[in-house]
Amino acid sequence: MTYCLGIINRFGIVMAGDSRTNAGVEYTSAYRKLFDFSLPGDRIIVICSSGNLSVTQGVLTELQRDLQNQEQTSLYTLSSMYDVAHYIGSKSRQIQDRDRPWLERDKISYQCNFLLGGQIKGEVPQLYMIYPQGNYIQATKETPFLQIGEMKYGKPLLDRTITYDTPLEAMAKCALLSIDSTMKSNISVGPPIHLIMYETDSFVLRHKLELRLGDPYLAKMRKLWEEYVRQAFEAMPNIEWQSEAENTKEDIFID
Amino acid sequence: MTYCLGIINRFGIVMAGDSRTNAGVEYTSAYRKLFDFSLPGDRIIVICSSGNLSVTQGVLTELQRDLQNQEQTSLYTLSSMYDVAHYIGSKSRQIQDRDRPWLERDKISYQCNFLLGGQIKGEVPQLYMIYPQGNYIQATKETPFLQIGEMKYGKPLLDRTITYDTPLEAMAKCALLSIDSTMKSNISVGPPIHLIMYETDSFVLRHKLELRLGDPYLAKMRKLWEEYVRQAFEAMPNIEWQSEAENTKEDIFID
Repeated sequence: MTYCLGIINRFGIVMAGDSRTNAGVEYTSAYRKLFDFSLPGDRIIVICSSGNLSVTQGVLTELQRDLQNQEQTSLYTLSSMYDVAHYIGSKSRQIQDRDRPWLERDKISYQCNFLLGGQIKGEVPQLYMIYPQGNYIQATKETPFLQIGEMKYGKPLLDRTITYDTPLEAMAKCALLSIDSTMKSNISVGPPIHLIMYETDSFVLRHKLELRLGDPYLAKMRKLWEEYVRQAFEAMPNIEWQSEAENTKEDIFID
Repeated sequence: MTYCLGIINRFGIVMAGDSRTNAGVEYTSAYRKLFDFSLPGDRIIVICSSGNLSVTQGVLTELQRDLQNQEQTSLYTLSSMYDVAHYIGSKSRQIQDRDRPWLERDKISYQCNFLLGGQIKGEVPQLYMIYPQGNYIQATKETPFLQIGEMKYGKPLLDRTITYDTPLEAMAKCALLSIDSTMKSNISVGPPIHLIMYETDSFVLRHKLELRLGDPYLAKMRKLWEEYVRQAFEAMPNIEWQSEAENTKEDIFID
């Protein structure tokens, strides 16, 4: 499994991903899921991947190969993020089509998702999610985050904190905590965590981070979070329980 | 969908459930999922259900019918919680077996899960989860909570807070917040919320609660929680980003 997320708002973009890949619970290993293809000064392009590892690695290798061969269509030549999303979706369709019959007949999932975040000169920053079918959606002001992989555990935190006006650094902390919550609840998501933070119109990726297993920041963050959660419970008003009189019932389905 | 949870520790048992049932997103309605079959002074028996509504209602009706007919085997006659779990599992198997061919051929899930919590005179309090196949597991000191239905959104909070020594009232608040987090992230889980809190060896269910949509306690709790989460982010130490020098890379898969 995998968990990656992207957050975008007026201040910029934060993207993060874990590094655990597993085949059942009996075989887990570490593969990074966040990749930086930026061309500083001209474009910021960051990609996260989830799903079948042979397919996602294939897609990323093809993207890289097009760059090396200086193909007419590549991550460096396309003039809009929309076109880059389409291009990644097409590569994903290609590789999946190639492997699908062999994987499908053994009931192995060939599907994969990508997050694409960044900014190309002349455009505003954008964040996309590319579906296994190659189509894609974009994060908006109303829903400024997108997730791929094991996304349920880390979603409540985002739902409660992230708005279009959240400061960038707070967004980065929230992304880390969202991944940490997922790691605590699901062993198929694990370190190292990769994190990037991009400031709108800077066209340079100044903030990057890799947090390995046992990193003191991660441990400090987790401890502090757990303290706050405990304090929140203590501060919560006492529950006003029903009086005994309200507790009678005759039918199990009707109070 | 549904979300129900049970928590047990040295002080007692807390159980809670939402009330939303849906067939797709185009048809949702309210059905309670938490049922009290207690016989004060002798036994506390609380059941939560999730899954196919016709099956769970069938099981509950059969349990009720056995009580009314004063059958030899019923929720009031069995002398241990283990036997009660087995009895509910058998009823569930019966109803599923009866309807399975008709549901299966139309690809409708006939599966359901139950939580069973309570205490019978002569025993310690116990909490069980009954699987769709009718077998069951019991919560233990190491993992003092069990969940059924849409359980991922509400799990991180439990993972970080609940221990064998958590006070009962804090457990009840945590259960409410776990359901509220799930409601916020998934529209197929919704109010009213039902909550019970049972003190070990009291053999009476003194604390019951129904929280309807817009209940002021729920609103207050949600607001306070969101304030604490925001404070936690503000208090978190700043991220120590990598220096520029560490940021060079040659291959996408190797830093």
